[in-house]
Amino acid sequence: MRQNLARRAALVDAAIEVLARDGARGLTFRAVDTEAAVPNGTASNYFANRDDLLNQAGARIYARLRPDDATIAAMSRGPAGRERTARMVREVLERVTTFRTGYLALLELRLEATRRPALRALLTDRVRADLDANAEGHLAAGLPGDADTVRLIHLAVNWLVVERLTLPDVFPQETAAELITTLVERLLPPGPA
Amino acid sequence: MRQNLARRAALVDAAIEVLARDGARGLTFRAVDTEAAVPNGTASNYFANRDDLLNQAGARIYARLRPDDATIAAMSRGPAGRERTARMVREVLERVTTFRTGYLALLELRLEATRRPALRALLTDRVRADLDANAEGHLAAGLPGDADTVRLIHLAVNWLVVERLTLPDVFPQETAAELITTLVERLLPPGPA
Repeated sequence: MRQNLARRAALVDAAIEVLARDGARGLTFRAVDTEAAVPNGTASNYFANRDDLLNQAGARIYARLRPDDATIAAMSRGPAGRERTARMVREVLERVTTFRTGYLALLELRLEATRRPALRALLTDRVRADLDANAEGHLAAGLPGDADTVRLIHLAVNWLVVERLTLPDVFPQETAAELITTLVERLLPPGPA
Repeated sequence: MRQNLARRAALVDAAIEVLARDGARGLTFRAVDTEAAVPNGTASNYFANRDDLLNQAGARIYARLRPDDATIAAMSRGPAGRERTARMVREVLERVTTFRTGYLALLELRLEATRRPALRALLTDRVRADLDANAEGHLAAGLPGDADTVRLIHLAVNWLVVERLTLPDVFPQETAAELITTLVERLLPPGPA
């Protein structure tokens, strides 16, 4: 069977939308075909099985959440201190919250991971790799703090995204941004800025 | 129709199990009857509609998450400082993580709240009331820090629960407890202890 990279990506993106809307239990090949507006039977030609589809959806969400080069360059400007860290973390909150269906799909994948060891192993590796890369980047940039600083920011920001996406009136957008500034100011040693 | 308080509680508890296992989309009166091992049609006599059932499940999870009097008494022992706060927060992590199906059901309710304004309003009020009560309790106990301290601990602990329940190898139990100690030590001003 001929496969096509653009179509594969479109099918995985459709799977993300289905996950966010109908949960992992709603994710069938047929639902993906419908969401992607392709003939029934298409998705089943692109994915070995449902596990494969779930795994590829997870990988694709992480890829789409990655900042672009301009964002990365903008984030590394300014003295390596609290102010820059707070700006970076506020940017992450905004970027992740904006990809609403991606983050909701990721929550659904985490819930599904409690039932699927392979998915759980894949997501565990991914989250660990992310945490390690963030800690490495933080230290390499000369920002104040240590690996625990990065872990604690990871914890607080992820739940702040959950609050923003599920109960947005608990912490309105501006309050959420201020909370991040407060978090960074209190967690990071003073440093150069 | 005669109703019975114990049976109502058993039906709401069954609804929590169904939510955790099958998600909000799997929560039907019939599924609740089956889970509670009562004759079909029972749940529909106890709840006005599905919204009512979802709302009562949410309220019941919060009630079951509340610490008992002995725990509250134990938590208020010792000097009002970082050490006591860390002990309290570690106890919360343990207590919430132990009621696994309750917390997973709450996540499912949050996802469902994105589609149901009444449920969203109810959960928003509940989370706000909890945050306010925690901040009030923190200050009344003379613990160091302010309302933002309590909010930031709320954010980090909730995501730590998500990590423990969905991807437990990211932060093993002991690492999670240590992270809380580090969080409290870094967030709270030194205070009396």
